Amino acid sequence: MAIKRAVVAFGGNAILKESGGGTVREQLRHCRETCDGLIDIIERGYELVIVHGNGPQVGNMLLRVEGARGRAPELPLDVCVAATQGTMGFMLEIEMRNRLRERGLVKEVSTLMTQVVVDPDRGSFEHPTKPVGPFYNKGRAVELRDEKGWDMVEDSRRGFRRVVPSPRPVEIIGIDTIRSLVDRGHVVIAGGGGGVPVIRRDGGARLAGVEAVVDKDYTASLMAREVEAELFIILTGVESVAVSFGTAEERSLSGITTGEARDYLARGEFPAGSMGPKISAALEFVEATGNEVLITAADALRPAVDGRTGTRIVKET
Amino acid sequence: MAIKRAVVAFGGNAILKESGGGTVREQLRHCRETCDGLIDIIERGYELVIVHGNGPQVGNMLLRVEGARGRAPELPLDVCVAATQGTMGFMLEIEMRNRLRERGLVKEVSTLMTQVVVDPDRGSFEHPTKPVGPFYNKGRAVELRDEKGWDMVEDSRRGFRRVVPSPRPVEIIGIDTIRSLVDRGHVVIAGGGGGVPVIRRDGGARLAGVEAVVDKDYTASLMAREVEAELFIILTGVESVAVSFGTAEERSLSGITTGEARDYLARGEFPAGSMGPKISAALEFVEATGNEVLITAADALRPAVDGRTGTRIVKET
Repeated sequence: MAIKRAVVAFGGNAILKESGGGTVREQLRHCRETCDGLIDIIERGYELVIVHGNGPQVGNMLLRVEGARGRAPELPLDVCVAATQGTMGFMLEIEMRNRLRERGLVKEVSTLMTQVVVDPDRGSFEHPTKPVGPFYNKGRAVELRDEKGWDMVEDSRRGFRRVVPSPRPVEIIGIDTIRSLVDRGHVVIAGGGGGVPVIRRDGGARLAGVEAVVDKDYTASLMAREVEAELFIILTGVESVAVSFGTAEERSLSGITTGEARDYLARGEFPAGSMGPKISAALEFVEATGNEVLITAADALRPAVDGRTGTRIVKET
Repeated sequence: MAIKRAVVAFGGNAILKESGGGTVREQLRHCRETCDGLIDIIERGYELVIVHGNGPQVGNMLLRVEGARGRAPELPLDVCVAATQGTMGFMLEIEMRNRLRERGLVKEVSTLMTQVVVDPDRGSFEHPTKPVGPFYNKGRAVELRDEKGWDMVEDSRRGFRRVVPSPRPVEIIGIDTIRSLVDRGHVVIAGGGGGVPVIRRDGGARLAGVEAVVDKDYTASLMAREVEAELFIILTGVESVAVSFGTAEERSLSGITTGEARDYLARGEFPAGSMGPKISAALEFVEATGNEVLITAADALRPAVDGRTGTRIVKET
């Protein structure tokens, strides 16, 4: 059987769900369930690279840093992302190993700490917009802005929050290693949380961490291109992408072309905060490779890979 | 030139020093200095595996978890160790990449999340002795003991502290991957903080995290045997190992045999909290392989590798 590669992206909220208390025990259970779905893909002959998000987890890490201020060194956002690569990578790897074994599959799992070089000109470094971390009252928000130079925005009801840049990833550090481990049949967990954002300084020679977050869908899209994936899977909260969402005309899409996707995007069918970046990340992959993207829910993964549900985005011919 | 491999172990306190405030900026500077010394070894023809400790860092992570109790999910100790593999791995990797480049060396760096299987019968699971995390007053200590089943001990002056098991590592998960990356010439950062401790359940089939800490010197010793290192280097606060330490008879050792080391150990020359485990870890390596261990200070690494200082432990012939 020829080797096929799939890159799969899912959010941190697939592991730490709003509904649960988010204990580590619960997160491990969600890891187990998620890995189970992913093994269905492996059983269909795909080698797998997993790119997980870290939204709620990095939010919690920022709360912890805040809660120990003055007693433990503060961690900048890039280091907090690195911490979640550690915690989530561990939980996913251990459950992936356990489920593989339980299902009788002999497969190695490798979790790589991953830095991504981001585009300093794209992602609103001048005017950051991505809210992260805890809510503050006005007085504290002003203090933090003055003390640390943080950009703060007001949330209509809940107080003030820090906003950070969300730049595009342009290079995955260590991509050759990721590629070679995939070629050797490993399940590779990499680019967690979208990757630890770094920029190139001194004419590109020197890497430096930067306080930003990278959208894991864009990192996964870049990863999928770099490992020459046959399939790029984006897991989300819905089984299929819909247009006219929430109206009487709502319609699920089982398959769309890149042209159709661009039209829908231009018409504002996919909001910037949710489906928009997923469709953009999908388009980048399909247009660069001619291969397919599948968008579906984690618990619909098996029928979706078999073509019975989910939304496929294919290149316009 | 034939490939030689070296495994080097150093403590978390080489990166987060007692004297400094321990900010991330300072930790990055210490990473840079440490990496500089390590590159001296690389320049002498060694491929390198780095096993860092995480004592102060995991202590800070526990303070953060404590500080956000009730607002963010608590992280058990194994997950805190995983977090420090993330944060420290990132800081070491970025500075290693930068220093390699500045010194004109083309070398890939890979940081692997690493679990180690621990021996449940060795390391005082029944009567844990290793203190971790913050100090508590008596009332809180009793609460935590009752609520969480933590073992607490009183520190003569500073209050009560949690104690956890410190079991021996018996297996490094993913060791084949580490070995293959070393063979490909990567600088590999693995087993950070001694590795995330896991035990085998259900007859060995299932891995589960366990609340313990693993001594990084023992993990590094196991790593050195597993990658068939020619040299195992343990960095510590002193340039050479001494006997009759702190007395008029104090004497630095430039070279000792395994027999001599065992004699000194038996005579209590090396305290359990500091040099003792390093000597034990060294003995395990030398006796298994016949190769040398070098114990020295980070800033004496270059002359020590050249044989001008440090303590070498060699096999008794």
